[in-house]
Amino acid sequence: MSTIETMQVVVYEGPFNIVVKKKTKPVLVDDTDAILKVHIAGVCGSDLHMYRGHQKTITGHTMGHEFIGTIESVGSAITRFNVGQKVMSMFSPMCMRCWFCQHGHTNRCVNGPSYGSMALDGGQAEFVRVPFADSTLEFIPEEVHDEMMILMCDIFPTGYYGAMKAITKLLRNTQTAESIVGGTLHAPSALRPAFQTIPLDEVVVVCLSWMWTSWTVPILSAKVLGAGTVYAVDSADDRLEEARKMGALPLKLGTDYIPEIVRSATAGRGADAVVEIVGNQSAMRLAIDLVRPCGIVSSVGFHQGDLPYTAFEAYSKNLDINMGRAAARPVYGEALKVFAENQDKFADFITHRMPLADAPTAYEMFEKHQARKVTLTL
Amino acid sequence: MSTIETMQVVVYEGPFNIVVKKKTKPVLVDDTDAILKVHIAGVCGSDLHMYRGHQKTITGHTMGHEFIGTIESVGSAITRFNVGQKVMSMFSPMCMRCWFCQHGHTNRCVNGPSYGSMALDGGQAEFVRVPFADSTLEFIPEEVHDEMMILMCDIFPTGYYGAMKAITKLLRNTQTAESIVGGTLHAPSALRPAFQTIPLDEVVVVCLSWMWTSWTVPILSAKVLGAGTVYAVDSADDRLEEARKMGALPLKLGTDYIPEIVRSATAGRGADAVVEIVGNQSAMRLAIDLVRPCGIVSSVGFHQGDLPYTAFEAYSKNLDINMGRAAARPVYGEALKVFAENQDKFADFITHRMPLADAPTAYEMFEKHQARKVTLTL
Repeated sequence: MSTIETMQVVVYEGPFNIVVKKKTKPVLVDDTDAILKVHIAGVCGSDLHMYRGHQKTITGHTMGHEFIGTIESVGSAITRFNVGQKVMSMFSPMCMRCWFCQHGHTNRCVNGPSYGSMALDGGQAEFVRVPFADSTLEFIPEEVHDEMMILMCDIFPTGYYGAMKAITKLLRNTQTAESIVGGTLHAPSALRPAFQTIPLDEVVVVCLSWMWTSWTVPILSAKVLGAGTVYAVDSADDRLEEARKMGALPLKLGTDYIPEIVRSATAGRGADAVVEIVGNQSAMRLAIDLVRPCGIVSSVGFHQGDLPYTAFEAYSKNLDINMGRAAARPVYGEALKVFAENQDKFADFITHRMPLADAPTAYEMFEKHQARKVTLTL
Repeated sequence: MSTIETMQVVVYEGPFNIVVKKKTKPVLVDDTDAILKVHIAGVCGSDLHMYRGHQKTITGHTMGHEFIGTIESVGSAITRFNVGQKVMSMFSPMCMRCWFCQHGHTNRCVNGPSYGSMALDGGQAEFVRVPFADSTLEFIPEEVHDEMMILMCDIFPTGYYGAMKAITKLLRNTQTAESIVGGTLHAPSALRPAFQTIPLDEVVVVCLSWMWTSWTVPILSAKVLGAGTVYAVDSADDRLEEARKMGALPLKLGTDYIPEIVRSATAGRGADAVVEIVGNQSAMRLAIDLVRPCGIVSSVGFHQGDLPYTAFEAYSKNLDINMGRAAARPVYGEALKVFAENQDKFADFITHRMPLADAPTAYEMFEKHQARKVTLTL
């Protein structure tokens, strides 16, 4: 009779109820799996949606979708990785075989279950099973410190994606079919104007990401991508100061008359784009108020309630709104380069490091804003 | 004492209350104005939003935003047009000087009032004042019959714009900042995949435009722009037959199980894009049901009520939704070319021609679907 190997894991038992307990150590299930021995696991702002009970779910699964570790075993189909290599995981597994993955929509992979759900235990654990390891994992580059790669699991690609969607949509917004489908159509009118694309240095972006630990990422990303003016909205002075250091103009909730300031800076029009990362109705409502007609709302916040705007508002402002979680894989290369070049700006990003056994305290402190970013170490 | 010149006009007096009465003939107000002697004015599907009382408005204005006529006088700043020339008008005046016009968003011109509103009398009248005539008017090309140009006032550019938005967004959907902003970022990972753009002949578009007189326009436009499969949803057999002739696969409301058919045709995914032109909640709801994750909803229907979907649906399907009226000027050249090449398909589009004095009957028949398209002749 073989002994069953167990390990320590962080389990969700219900709202405000995080428990450290023992579970059976995972084993390879599919030939595309890898098993990781986890070294560092992050507690992410999106974990709080579940912790606070806003995101309804069954209980009992292991939490966590940010982690780095060493490969302990690999399935027979794995070609990129070997036992003993140090790696990080994207925040959600992606198969790279389904139609969605192949078309760049890795955020809607039909085969990859989500970490930290009933379908797949997460990485706040001594060991974790990684499906589709060849595409879900990445190496840790020499130029980035191991611990800092926790930011590349979710925070950085997600924030970068939100800003990237806004900027690229703005740049393409005046293009017509003639310039996209390939010039088979022509313009018969002498009047046909050469419409201007907005010069990037004139673009005004507002980042709404208060309460989100990683809110400086979309600010930095929008600046790196060339946006001339980036406003950052928050209620806390310390976070507004961080935003300022990243190149944003700070706007304080409850103090500044934000819509008027944005309108004044844009000749009355409103912001060209708003990047929404909070995932609540008041943020989305502010986005609709601040964006100009024909502007972009790029939302990667996790949303559950009703939409806080009417069909008439969207119609009469000609709004272009995309929502949903980031596609990490298509932007990973770009995001990593931006991150590596700016990692000094995130040097004191992780404020608390605790042993896995202290996970209940870590969640409690994080939820109460007593910690900006907590990692669990093993 | 000079005599005051009067003319016959079609006035909105409230829901289901259209009256032909006399008003003072318009005169030049601004130096960018033109006065047109109207020959033909169309009753548009969007006039019914007001006629049926769905679109709340003050009463007393002259109706109509589709008309062709001869230039009777021009302001001193007009350079493109001379007295006596035959022209058509875009459905709404555009100044081409404001920030929105200059950036291709002529649908949100801040200086151009809407025809058929308290701000500007419409063209269902013997004469009409045209603001910003140099950019609001267009010549009638030799290859298109005068009367047919009524379709180019609104119906054709709007339907084309709806389809164009959907197709061009699909083609750009997998592009990242690297390929847009200009290649200053690079991908450090060997895995970085070459994501596929959807081949146009595999694109599946659904057109929702029932109750809209001009519903075959987005169907034709989507086909001309290269969409491989276009479904058309309607409840009426005769309109479904027209859709079939334009190249669409007809789906009958209340008879076909539409979501299942679309899913079967797309390996379970759903439509790549849905073009919504009806402007009501049930159409928008069907759009959300039919579109695939990461798909496009392109809506040019006039919407007033609540949005018939939740934030969670938009988030969890990663939807990209644009709403609002078409920008006519940027697509005018493309749309006219498609229209001119396909005008034979619209030869029997106008079913009823009535004198202006019969406008009340025209509206009544049109509202009851007894006429497909009515023009008022002068």
